[in-house]
Amino acid sequence: MSTRVFILSDHTGITAGSIARALLAQFPHQSFTLEEHPFLDDMQKVEHIANEIERIDEGDHPPLVFSSFVDRKARSLLKERFADRLYDIFEAFTPPLEKLLGESVSPIAGQLHGISNTGLYTERIQALDYAMVHDDGSITRNYEKADVILIGVSRSGKTPTCLYLALHNGLQAANYPLVDEDLETTQLPPILRQYREKLVALTIEPKQLQRIRQQRRPGSRYSSPEQCEWEVHQAEAIFRKHHIPVIDTTAVSIEEIAVHITAEIMS
Amino acid sequence: MSTRVFILSDHTGITAGSIARALLAQFPHQSFTLEEHPFLDDMQKVEHIANEIERIDEGDHPPLVFSSFVDRKARSLLKERFADRLYDIFEAFTPPLEKLLGESVSPIAGQLHGISNTGLYTERIQALDYAMVHDDGSITRNYEKADVILIGVSRSGKTPTCLYLALHNGLQAANYPLVDEDLETTQLPPILRQYREKLVALTIEPKQLQRIRQQRRPGSRYSSPEQCEWEVHQAEAIFRKHHIPVIDTTAVSIEEIAVHITAEIMS
Repeated sequence: MSTRVFILSDHTGITAGSIARALLAQFPHQSFTLEEHPFLDDMQKVEHIANEIERIDEGDHPPLVFSSFVDRKARSLLKERFADRLYDIFEAFTPPLEKLLGESVSPIAGQLHGISNTGLYTERIQALDYAMVHDDGSITRNYEKADVILIGVSRSGKTPTCLYLALHNGLQAANYPLVDEDLETTQLPPILRQYREKLVALTIEPKQLQRIRQQRRPGSRYSSPEQCEWEVHQAEAIFRKHHIPVIDTTAVSIEEIAVHITAEIMS
Repeated sequence: MSTRVFILSDHTGITAGSIARALLAQFPHQSFTLEEHPFLDDMQKVEHIANEIERIDEGDHPPLVFSSFVDRKARSLLKERFADRLYDIFEAFTPPLEKLLGESVSPIAGQLHGISNTGLYTERIQALDYAMVHDDGSITRNYEKADVILIGVSRSGKTPTCLYLALHNGLQAANYPLVDEDLETTQLPPILRQYREKLVALTIEPKQLQRIRQQRRPGSRYSSPEQCEWEVHQAEAIFRKHHIPVIDTTAVSIEEIAVHITAEIMS
């Protein structure tokens, strides 16, 4: 039987959900079912869901509650009802933080990246426009405005990474796909030569690349083992020769690739 | 003087960073400088950064350390060195969770959404391809495959939301911009009529819309107060008439809009 896990928040609950997933992944022998309830922004809504959780027949698997509430009253209510199976982020960390900083919190639901914060929003949206226009090497001008230019063979993860970097970091990320004619030599494609310091390369295991391409164009030359192997081999030779930092995307998520790239840019 | 805040992790540190930002936003009278150190995946790296933090002259503002380490040895080291100013997610929640579940953790850095998890990766990438092809009403066929179709005036937040939904939720999200000719009546554009149950509308305060458009095309009719006001007024009349759920994006982030939409889809 699966343990029911409630994610409750007076905001999006994204952070509480991430924590729950990371923690519960450490218990691979158990099974969990997550139920997310965001925007519980008045006490009636909190009461309602608390009652619902209490009515669950516990048996051997009492439900778990992960929560993030800026509102103190909501936190107290949950603490009272679910003491031993409640994991509340603010409750856990706020008191020691108040002590250390010598100041009580001023509860505000932090709108750090709202559209109302025009500056930051505009930065992200401009970055997104840039990433979409400069996707897939379709337009190669304006590379001087790029914060980073990702290069790699088709389906090595460039596009999702560029969009993630724009949405989350406000970075202007272009990408350039290495095609057959680029791969026939170990030279850098001419258009990229003056931007070498902005280049970050993505690579991937040929077998994994093949699986991904196979789903896109089954049975084609594009998705054949020989072609995938040849492309990756040639691309890696280019990266080595020109000392371009390389990230292997085979076993990592888009989020991880993005964090590696921001670290690369700042180094 | 600003308090230095270190975000340390043996993985991306994205969750630890989110928690730090949410908690520190509750102390608006203080100033903090965040320094992120992801992928500290061996003890030498952890030692190195711990030494660096210890060397900081504390003065009135001892540095804070937010961390998420799956590795227990790393957690112990940090606990020893920074006891009273350490906020470690796994350390805070793992012991009570182990007790409740009656099982010790099996420390594995959970690769829940890696490219190696081909199924989930493919789903996200297909969703992303879909969102990019169906952005801005450019292609209106294939709407029957959409999980959701966002409608709204230009620059109400449709594109970033669609991309976010694809990247994070694997949802196939199309978007259709309401242009002048759509807004001259209160009818739904013909192409959308058979998909009414998939529609979610985005709206925005005219003044905010104007600010955003002004940065894009300053001094144009497109960014004039009259045009912005007229478009929003007409769009909202359409949404009301056809009972389309509406999200006001004026003061909320892309993440929040996305969570509202996933809640809307599941309801």
